[in-house]
Amino acid sequence: MLDVVICGTGNLAVHLFKALKNRPEVNVVQVVGRNTRALEYFAGQAETVTDLDKLARADIYILAISDNAIEEYAGRLEAAGGLLVHTSGSMPISSLPENGRRGVFYPLQTFSKELEVDFRKIPICIEAEEEEDYGLLNFLASAISDKVVRIDSQQRAVLHTAAVFVNNFTNHLYHIGHSLCDEKGVDFELLHELIRETASKVEHLSPLDAQTGPARRGDTITMEKQLNMLETETFSDVYKTISKSIEKTYGEKL
Amino acid sequence: MLDVVICGTGNLAVHLFKALKNRPEVNVVQVVGRNTRALEYFAGQAETVTDLDKLARADIYILAISDNAIEEYAGRLEAAGGLLVHTSGSMPISSLPENGRRGVFYPLQTFSKELEVDFRKIPICIEAEEEEDYGLLNFLASAISDKVVRIDSQQRAVLHTAAVFVNNFTNHLYHIGHSLCDEKGVDFELLHELIRETASKVEHLSPLDAQTGPARRGDTITMEKQLNMLETETFSDVYKTISKSIEKTYGEKL
Repeated sequence: MLDVVICGTGNLAVHLFKALKNRPEVNVVQVVGRNTRALEYFAGQAETVTDLDKLARADIYILAISDNAIEEYAGRLEAAGGLLVHTSGSMPISSLPENGRRGVFYPLQTFSKELEVDFRKIPICIEAEEEEDYGLLNFLASAISDKVVRIDSQQRAVLHTAAVFVNNFTNHLYHIGHSLCDEKGVDFELLHELIRETASKVEHLSPLDAQTGPARRGDTITMEKQLNMLETETFSDVYKTISKSIEKTYGEKL
Repeated sequence: MLDVVICGTGNLAVHLFKALKNRPEVNVVQVVGRNTRALEYFAGQAETVTDLDKLARADIYILAISDNAIEEYAGRLEAAGGLLVHTSGSMPISSLPENGRRGVFYPLQTFSKELEVDFRKIPICIEAEEEEDYGLLNFLASAISDKVVRIDSQQRAVLHTAAVFVNNFTNHLYHIGHSLCDEKGVDFELLHELIRETASKVEHLSPLDAQTGPARRGDTITMEKQLNMLETETFSDVYKTISKSIEKTYGEKL
């Protein structure tokens, strides 16, 4: 039985807690947070504390907190012993105190309060400095996910940047599509199936081969028409910049 | 029984043909194309001709050809009678000859040779000038799709522009993510689940509310780090332009 303390009360902490508490091989002994209101969700299901002096003993301490809070928080947890891990895509393992056992436990997914997630499908990227700690993290990650991978800090930073493109930036393109539809009274729902198909296509076809559209064909007439339709400069800039990048990508391949 | 002639032999023509030929209420009497090699696929399943003088009589003639070929092709088909429709998102109904019956039959989806599609889920946007022709197009579209909508040329142009953002541009962002992973030996497959989740999220949450990431949080430290990781200027430009658009979108809402 692996004893785990979760530090943090945000979306990731909640989803991680839900996934871990159902596993017989893992025991979430404590949830630590500064926000007493947010801690209420966990109360009754695990011990909750606001005071770091009351920290329980555990095998693994998981920091599910924002990137910029990691260093300060980690410094205060150092004395607890056990393996200290953060859950950030962009912070290196070296952002944790070097005189303790440290590691990274990074679930590659976007979490929101409203939506349930199936942790078994979420890749968990783990990193540690000692083989024994890799073993511990692998045990913990495998308890909730079917996809556990060893990734070093540099690769994780790349993965996180790629995730910003395919998740955060893509969502913003959905927003632009949504705005255009709203302006002209067109139902954005009509685009759902296209969005789904575009996303599932890359599982069978490389995005390089799957590319279609005016910029790919060099269809400047359509591009001109569509640009004229965009009423804000910001959206026009996005249209032009991505079109240029598509032209450059395929121009180089010709 | 509705008699239909398909003009064109590309991806859309193939998928449309597959969907229509299974329907008892529709009869694909002929496929017309210039490319004899491409016509081979249809031969044996329907009459195929290269010569427009041999055009069969039909209720509806569907132009499944590229945008810039529509006007020329349509001019030559005019004499055939029947309802002439194109399948383009960006061309207005007025691009067809005004002295004949004309309309638009626009399936809102991306088609590739390699992948099967489920036409029943694909929205088909129809437009006509006469109620009777709307009836015909509605009958044809409903034979293969569960989602038939009346959309005028202006709304269709908006929808097509939105589709460029959520499909073509999004696919290019997938390509950038793929390139970054490839460069550093990270498996792009790790991002599949995130891509799927990002796409399905907008069916439950507006993309405006679903936005996360460094630009949304104003996390300039992470943005700076990620920009430094991008080795090509084109990809940096995409990163900066979309981040700026995100900042602008939420800055205005604050």
